[in-house]
Amino acid sequence: MIDYRSDNTGRAAPEILDAMVRANSGTALGYGADEWTASLQERFSDLFETKVRVFPVATGTAANALALAASSPSWGLVYCSEAAHINTSEANAAGFFGSGLKLVPVGGNHGRIDPDAFARTWASVMPGQLHRGQPAAVNLTQASDLGAVYRLDEIRAITEIAKRRGLKIHMDGARFANALARLGCSPAELTWRSGIDILSFGATKNGALAAEVVVVFDKKRSEEFAFRRKRAGHLFSKMRFLSAQLGAYLEGELWLKNARHANAMAKRLAEGLMAVPGATLAHPVEANEIFVDLPETAIRGLTADGFQFYRWLGEDKTLLRLVAAHDTKEADVAAFIASAKRHAARANERVA
Amino acid sequence: MIDYRSDNTGRAAPEILDAMVRANSGTALGYGADEWTASLQERFSDLFETKVRVFPVATGTAANALALAASSPSWGLVYCSEAAHINTSEANAAGFFGSGLKLVPVGGNHGRIDPDAFARTWASVMPGQLHRGQPAAVNLTQASDLGAVYRLDEIRAITEIAKRRGLKIHMDGARFANALARLGCSPAELTWRSGIDILSFGATKNGALAAEVVVVFDKKRSEEFAFRRKRAGHLFSKMRFLSAQLGAYLEGELWLKNARHANAMAKRLAEGLMAVPGATLAHPVEANEIFVDLPETAIRGLTADGFQFYRWLGEDKTLLRLVAAHDTKEADVAAFIASAKRHAARANERVA
Amino acid sequence: MIDYRSDNTGRAAPEILDAMVRANSGTALGYGADEWTASLQERFSDLFETKVRVFPVATGTAANALALAASSPSWGLVYCSEAAHINTSEANAAGFFGSGLKLVPVGGNHGRIDPDAFARTWASVMPGQLHRGQPAAVNLTQASDLGAVYRLDEIRAITEIAKRRGLKIHMDGARFANALARLGCSPAELTWRSGIDILSFGATKNGALAAEVVVVFDKKRSEEFAFRRKRAGHLFSKMRFLSAQLGAYLEGELWLKNARHANAMAKRLAEGLMAVPGATLAHPVEANEIFVDLPETAIRGLTADGFQFYRWLGEDKTLLRLVAAHDTKEADVAAFIASAKRHAARANERVA
Amino acid sequence: MIDYRSDNTGRAAPEILDAMVRANSGTALGYGADEWTASLQERFSDLFETKVRVFPVATGTAANALALAASSPSWGLVYCSEAAHINTSEANAAGFFGSGLKLVPVGGNHGRIDPDAFARTWASVMPGQLHRGQPAAVNLTQASDLGAVYRLDEIRAITEIAKRRGLKIHMDGARFANALARLGCSPAELTWRSGIDILSFGATKNGALAAEVVVVFDKKRSEEFAFRRKRAGHLFSKMRFLSAQLGAYLEGELWLKNARHANAMAKRLAEGLMAVPGATLAHPVEANEIFVDLPETAIRGLTADGFQFYRWLGEDKTLLRLVAAHDTKEADVAAFIASAKRHAARANERVA
Repeated sequence: MIDYRSDNTGRAAPEILDAMVRANSGTALGYGADEWTASLQERFSDLFETKVRVFPVATGTAANALALAASSPSWGLVYCSEAAHINTSEANAAGFFGSGLKLVPVGGNHGRIDPDAFARTWASVMPGQLHRGQPAAVNLTQASDLGAVYRLDEIRAITEIAKRRGLKIHMDGARFANALARLGCSPAELTWRSGIDILSFGATKNGALAAEVVVVFDKKRSEEFAFRRKRAGHLFSKMRFLSAQLGAYLEGELWLKNARHANAMAKRLAEGLMAVPGATLAHPVEANEIFVDLPETAIRGLTADGFQFYRWLGEDKTLLRLVAAHDTKEADVAAFIASAKRHAARANERVA
Repeated sequence: MIDYRSDNTGRAAPEILDAMVRANSGTALGYGADEWTASLQERFSDLFETKVRVFPVATGTAANALALAASSPSWGLVYCSEAAHINTSEANAAGFFGSGLKLVPVGGNHGRIDPDAFARTWASVMPGQLHRGQPAAVNLTQASDLGAVYRLDEIRAITEIAKRRGLKIHMDGARFANALARLGCSPAELTWRSGIDILSFGATKNGALAAEVVVVFDKKRSEEFAFRRKRAGHLFSKMRFLSAQLGAYLEGELWLKNARHANAMAKRLAEGLMAVPGATLAHPVEANEIFVDLPETAIRGLTADGFQFYRWLGEDKTLLRLVAAHDTKEADVAAFIASAKRHAARANERVA
Repeated sequence: MIDYRSDNTGRAAPEILDAMVRANSGTALGYGADEWTASLQERFSDLFETKVRVFPVATGTAANALALAASSPSWGLVYCSEAAHINTSEANAAGFFGSGLKLVPVGGNHGRIDPDAFARTWASVMPGQLHRGQPAAVNLTQASDLGAVYRLDEIRAITEIAKRRGLKIHMDGARFANALARLGCSPAELTWRSGIDILSFGATKNGALAAEVVVVFDKKRSEEFAFRRKRAGHLFSKMRFLSAQLGAYLEGELWLKNARHANAMAKRLAEGLMAVPGATLAHPVEANEIFVDLPETAIRGLTADGFQFYRWLGEDKTLLRLVAAHDTKEADVAAFIASAKRHAARANERVA
Repeated sequence: MIDYRSDNTGRAAPEILDAMVRANSGTALGYGADEWTASLQERFSDLFETKVRVFPVATGTAANALALAASSPSWGLVYCSEAAHINTSEANAAGFFGSGLKLVPVGGNHGRIDPDAFARTWASVMPGQLHRGQPAAVNLTQASDLGAVYRLDEIRAITEIAKRRGLKIHMDGARFANALARLGCSPAELTWRSGIDILSFGATKNGALAAEVVVVFDKKRSEEFAFRRKRAGHLFSKMRFLSAQLGAYLEGELWLKNARHANAMAKRLAEGLMAVPGATLAHPVEANEIFVDLPETAIRGLTADGFQFYRWLGEDKTLLRLVAAHDTKEADVAAFIASAKRHAARANERVA
């Protein structure tokens, strides 16, 4: 059964499960005072070529909501894409953690904020405006929720405007590995060297069981972050089982290897589907997600053949989301393409 | 100096100030256990032809935010107009009081939600959706922030859809009196008989010093409202000075008298300005606000003549907001129109 | 009818009501951009002999909760007296405004924190402790809720410990004038020169209708306070009517004159009651409140004679709270004492 | 190295880790729409002999804070033991999740609320009291944080008073298994049949990696709980790895087997230590925790011998907390006792 429904339906990477099993060999202090967690501080600092503080948590919503609340006061406005995960898929978590902070969607395409639209939004903000709320932060989803990736110059165009006005920049990197694999730049370039202050570094969608890290580049805020996480119930007592996942994720660049594979499978799938008559891509395929419109007959045929996927906009719509994973097999991709072609062709025969 | 800047720049009605002075003649129990506050329960129940509970507060933001938090859980979505006061002018108060509740702008014109746009928004809501948040309430601003008034059938079209889905309906009646004066219906028809569950009944913009009432039509929620207000610091110890304002506001229909006058002055002003070459109305003038685009020379001339008003969209824009009040004088309206005409005419001469 | 029930049952000072009436003579910009509010910044800076920022609000609960939330993060611990108003009488407002901040009662007597008890509490706090919450602030009620007044050296003993640990100090000065009248020191000595960072400066209990001021001595926090107040619905649109009360309150030292009178009446009443057989004071009478235990027959007699007051601990208890006000009359005090004596004496006759 | 520091320093039970590995064999829908999670609903309903809704989360703080927020409004008071975990060890999480709800410590011993003290607390609550906050819920820690266990009649004495006043009852069962093992009653008797409305059912301290379940006995509140958890970032995307832990925990009564063993080891350890001269128990040993005062020389000797444990009240105090776990070995217990005896005896020799 081939499953393209979501990054979250897939298997965990065996290397990560193994690390959890190994972490169970002895006793260790709780709440992060263990060697697994301690080593993460250094490993992430190495990875990002600067001293960072990292805070493992178990869900992407926790990572994002904690990071945003650390970046905006209760009366703050956080600019984001209309399609941003924090705006569409986290059930007010940002507002809850931020005691009322407000998300302000900004125009753009493919799930990204457009730098010009962001500049225009700013032009209407009066300095010291009290009644509308205080501009506080920007959220960038990298890769975006619609499968696109910000280029470095796009990120910098936004962060430059934002920094001039004192805004903090949060990157939602639930698919950070996929974006990095696409861009080929360094983690430092994609983050603090481009103006990012705080990062949700995701692992769950790319092979972990339940592990994300908030990477804090700004020392001042990192001091309070430990309290912030604890008071939200997101500090694990047996932290080593969370940190062990992340250690294995970094080990031997597993995270990049997994992401490169998922991206490659998505690209292959997209290219193959372009040969299906009537197929069109709704968004560029730059990470591991494909948004493709297929003929209804092809969709039904694929379902009948046992492939699993979601129609993106409801049961009567023909736009599909297909998500490739770290363990998606080439043969399965080929089978999916072949099935889509076959069913689309039959439909044409019937029409003819 | 003639001042059209805001409902809030004007004088309080003398009847209301007098009532405060009279309330100071003796001692009275604090926190609402006084005769002024007690009588409000009955007077508002009479006014609305049903048993209501009323909670005086001092600001419109308090009234709205308390009412919305009483209508939506922390994970709730509150639908409103893009131009709604709660969305543009209350600095995240709804989110703060509602522990993260989220405002969802819905399309429409002149500051109102369009029933069809609301229906379309609903069509995309999946029952039991967890990730996006739970649809919880609708906010209607009556009169709207752009000077328009919902007709009863428009309100009912929205509340019918909303009620079917279990949503609560909040009416922001900061200018309730103006809307009622325009429509000529009864307070009951404009509220609970049209599906409204909770109302912010404003007095400050229409002659009070600082007095609003939350009118709760739903008994169940009224029990907790006293706690909700207290814990937000909005319960006055010397409540009689707040309640006395409201008593005077209702007395002899002062509230409607004031609103009728303000509406009439706005109408007269709008009609007069239509004779100014180049003048256009951006929104229908149905309450006490006028949004009018005037030639730049007319605007500068009016300013030079000492009239006070705001440019609505920034210092380089020619759209003005003019707000008529309970004590706006006919002669002042005439003078404003005359000034605008004179300056516009001179500009034309120069051009010619 | 003589009324000792509460500071809040009394009349407003006529000077203050008059100032509100005068403030209604013309139009003025809303939300604090008026001359009355502007002048307060200077007047309070003069009064406190340092540049302060002041934020008028309408209730003591608002002043306290906003000040505490500005002094402690969501995960912070705020130390206070068990009898502190924020702990007993504000229905979780501190926790609500502070998104969960927690009050930690510290031992002491007469509604005050005892410096030694505070030091002992601290001895058990481990640096960097994560699980219990982060020590953040101290709240001192001056005068205390039980009628006592901190001496300057007591305040300084507490603030010295607290400052060394980075805590912020909030003074709840709902009866600041009464405390100052008692101590005879300067406002500066009682506040920032003794380590106070932020002050709720009360006027409502001492003659205003509804007016308190948050005085912020710490510039950094004052920048955000405007947003904090607005987003809690505590920014008045017709602010001049709030600020005018405070202007009149300061004018000609009305505030001190009122407080001195109330204190003197309380002292006279307490001294007189000490001549009643069986009467004992539960707390020292250092401000305008008296906590006196009287014989049951005296209490019933006083009630029968029409005096109004509260039994402090429930209907079957003989501890009374008597509150003297700015307009309490000497003759009324004398009448109360005489009535108490007469009824207590009769009881003794019956016994004899 | 023998480690008695905490339930959280120990190894996970191999059965539970194995179940996680097995859960990784295929793909499954995310966010709880998987077979592991589905089966928990039925298994817990069977276990509690009534239809319950269960919500797995990863930390005890999350379970407690979510449960309390579901049991009390923002203005609510939650009664608990001074030593309750929610009061001492969760860094304001209850207040944060509950938007300001307030914990009110009630007297008792060994970490339990005393029914009489609770009754006395209630006697001072005035019905409808507004200023102090609204009594809303009771929290019982079972087993207590000091190693004691409530008997059924003690629980019922408290819940009877509480129910009469409309309070909700939350049981913090981080060590529910240990309490049940001690009492020998059924899960139903210990919970809903004794008046419990909502339960934090712990597994992490008793062999899981990171898994707790909120068991909701009250249908009405269970509908909103899914939103409450999601919006707090506590809904796992790959939920099966959380649910699989809980399935294995229930399988073959592993949970009770583990708890019985830990309790037995604690009992054995306590009994053995009673033979050490100078040793005294601070609390009854009814679950898996021992609070024992030992001579300083014994403590130093044990540390020198490599045993790991905490001094409970700071580095200069001789009260130890020793926590027995599901995998504590009899031989290790014996070794600990022997070491303590040996070092205590040597001290006596030196003295003699």
